[in-house]
Amino acid sequence: MTKGRLEAFSDGVFAVAITLLILDVRPESGGSGWEMLVHDWHKILVYLLSFVIVGVYWVSHHHMMHFITGTNRVLLWINLTLLLMVVFIPYVAALLSASHADASAIRIYGTTLILTNLTGTGLWRYATRNHRLVNPAMPHSFARFVLCIHTAPVLFYGAGIALASWHSFLSLMLFALVPVFFILPNPWLERRIRHASENMRRAQGEA
Amino acid sequence: MTKGRLEAFSDGVFAVAITLLILDVRPESGGSGWEMLVHDWHKILVYLLSFVIVGVYWVSHHHMMHFITGTNRVLLWINLTLLLMVVFIPYVAALLSASHADASAIRIYGTTLILTNLTGTGLWRYATRNHRLVNPAMPHSFARFVLCIHTAPVLFYGAGIALASWHSFLSLMLFALVPVFFILPNPWLERRIRHASENMRRAQGEA
Amino acid sequence: MTKGRLEAFSDGVFAVAITLLILDVRPESGGSGWEMLVHDWHKILVYLLSFVIVGVYWVSHHHMMHFITGTNRVLLWINLTLLLMVVFIPYVAALLSASHADASAIRIYGTTLILTNLTGTGLWRYATRNHRLVNPAMPHSFARFVLCIHTAPVLFYGAGIALASWHSFLSLMLFALVPVFFILPNPWLERRIRHASENMRRAQGEA
Amino acid sequence: MTKGRLEAFSDGVFAVAITLLILDVRPESGGSGWEMLVHDWHKILVYLLSFVIVGVYWVSHHHMMHFITGTNRVLLWINLTLLLMVVFIPYVAALLSASHADASAIRIYGTTLILTNLTGTGLWRYATRNHRLVNPAMPHSFARFVLCIHTAPVLFYGAGIALASWHSFLSLMLFALVPVFFILPNPWLERRIRHASENMRRAQGEA
Repeated sequence: MTKGRLEAFSDGVFAVAITLLILDVRPESGGSGWEMLVHDWHKILVYLLSFVIVGVYWVSHHHMMHFITGTNRVLLWINLTLLLMVVFIPYVAALLSASHADASAIRIYGTTLILTNLTGTGLWRYATRNHRLVNPAMPHSFARFVLCIHTAPVLFYGAGIALASWHSFLSLMLFALVPVFFILPNPWLERRIRHASENMRRAQGEA
Repeated sequence: MTKGRLEAFSDGVFAVAITLLILDVRPESGGSGWEMLVHDWHKILVYLLSFVIVGVYWVSHHHMMHFITGTNRVLLWINLTLLLMVVFIPYVAALLSASHADASAIRIYGTTLILTNLTGTGLWRYATRNHRLVNPAMPHSFARFVLCIHTAPVLFYGAGIALASWHSFLSLMLFALVPVFFILPNPWLERRIRHASENMRRAQGEA
Repeated sequence: MTKGRLEAFSDGVFAVAITLLILDVRPESGGSGWEMLVHDWHKILVYLLSFVIVGVYWVSHHHMMHFITGTNRVLLWINLTLLLMVVFIPYVAALLSASHADASAIRIYGTTLILTNLTGTGLWRYATRNHRLVNPAMPHSFARFVLCIHTAPVLFYGAGIALASWHSFLSLMLFALVPVFFILPNPWLERRIRHASENMRRAQGEA
Repeated sequence: MTKGRLEAFSDGVFAVAITLLILDVRPESGGSGWEMLVHDWHKILVYLLSFVIVGVYWVSHHHMMHFITGTNRVLLWINLTLLLMVVFIPYVAALLSASHADASAIRIYGTTLILTNLTGTGLWRYATRNHRLVNPAMPHSFARFVLCIHTAPVLFYGAGIALASWHSFLSLMLFALVPVFFILPNPWLERRIRHASENMRRAQGEA
């Protein structure tokens, strides 16, 4: 199993999963187009939220694979577990719509996102532990930095879960903050990434 | 994130989205095959229209990516926004069928197409601004020409929206004109593209 | 637009379309597994038939692309038309199931297959005409041979359509003969292909 | 048809089929999110089981293709038959859910898995027979070892089928043992693979 095949298959699964999100938004015949759109409005919001969240997972999956240099059986199965979680997101998104953002549905949605993030974190941890599947010159600080960035959303998702029964809209806002954090220009994050990358390049140069 | 991965993922999403269009055309049991086909006739027309429109988006996406030489975080997210719009098209197509081309559904469909085009225009503008992610030798005239070609359909879609409550069939014809314009042999367009490409190659030769 | 991108996108659409065929076979709750399977039996047969037919289209698409050396705007749009037909097959397959292989549904199914084949034939004819997009050394006999092979199924599909109101099962058998012809070992066909390929290689050697 | 295209298309079909598994798990409106999740619980278990089973097929498909050096028309069609079986799995999984793991549904599910495995075994046997499409230096012992590993799950599936009417949960546990066997660290299996690979590399070195 080469890294290229693993990425191509993962890309395929991500592409299908992100597109399936729209399948939950189906107009029911009856009424004008506008009435149906208004009727589906909360489903459309769930679609937008879930699309960008899966988008963030795709982006971070590729960032991690960029630094991973090989594969083995364990990595393969951690990756399949990650895909299993990602494919599950359209279901919990449909749950969120069908229950009109009921508190328990928000908790299920948030828990799925947390498990997905932790699986991604596990992938990175496994690959970087003792430089198992990454360049031996990768500084520990860089591996730890990526680990933190990838685990941080868990805090937001956890807060969203905790607030679910109190204020469901606020919970969803907290979930939405994660992609916003990664999308908005973020000088602090970019400086840290640049710094870590330079450290890494320098270390590789010395090695 | 290399340009290749971005293209492969986008290709996957385009391929799934264009194929999902057929999912809205589902025969309901009862009656002969011919009766079901006649009953689904307007859904089939919406399928045909939407398929060629998404096809045009795919073609123009690749033409733009052909000249883009690198990626960054902003381009990545503009591209994901473009994909989000493209994946939304099967929904608005279903809306158009379910409402039997009601005026408001036509306006929603047209608005989605306009937003998709403007996102594509934004992608190109971002990449070519100060030659950010394109060859420094690309002449301004070429960048502007692609920008115009990509923005022009907005006029047709806008006219279709304006006419929606007056004559819905005419509106859909206006929408259909856009793919027709790109499909039919078009000596004027081809001469301009050839001219611009030659300018560009010459400029690159001098650089 | 390079040939590689065209093939990758086409592969994606073929892969999604061939997999969507199973979506029409959905068990309805109630009864044991065996009862549901028996109830869906004719849908499963339609799935098997359509899967191998789309499989044949995919194989012949690749055989043709193997000899095509470049692309242009016209080829691109003929190819998109071919994909439009292929994506339509899951719908006509569902029509065939839903109408219990009613004569008119068989005619619609057969007509779709004929149009798909003729689009493929058109693709090959356009590419080979005056060696437009193929190696200039390709012998005319080879181009004509591929053209015949690709057009021949039209006769079977046409015969199936003609017999539809007389004996629907026989019609479907005629449709099924096409993939069988391409799947079964076929010394005559293989000798002709080998012969033509050798001719072509020799001609290229002389060129 | 090059091996690369065959793998890319197969990857696409695997990616779509594995993602379609989630489409059977659709919440029905009404009740809280938690109630819907509990209501869909057995569908989720079927999703998890089927996802890892298809995952194992994908992994073993790639392992086999890794050693196969070329393709021909027969291999192409055996591979399409394998994909036909894989695409059928979402249907039998839906059957399993819809019948609440009724004994006959378990037998159908298990039989589909057995047929899929035997098709894979046939693929490998065809390719390795007389070193038809593999490196001539591949030792017979290695070819036989892969054959055994690929056929072994048939025993588990067969046992699961035999026990279906006695204890349905036990049957499903037996089905689940197969992916567990391939996922869990397995020193015996790894030593045998390493040994066989070394034998093969040595044989190639001598050749």
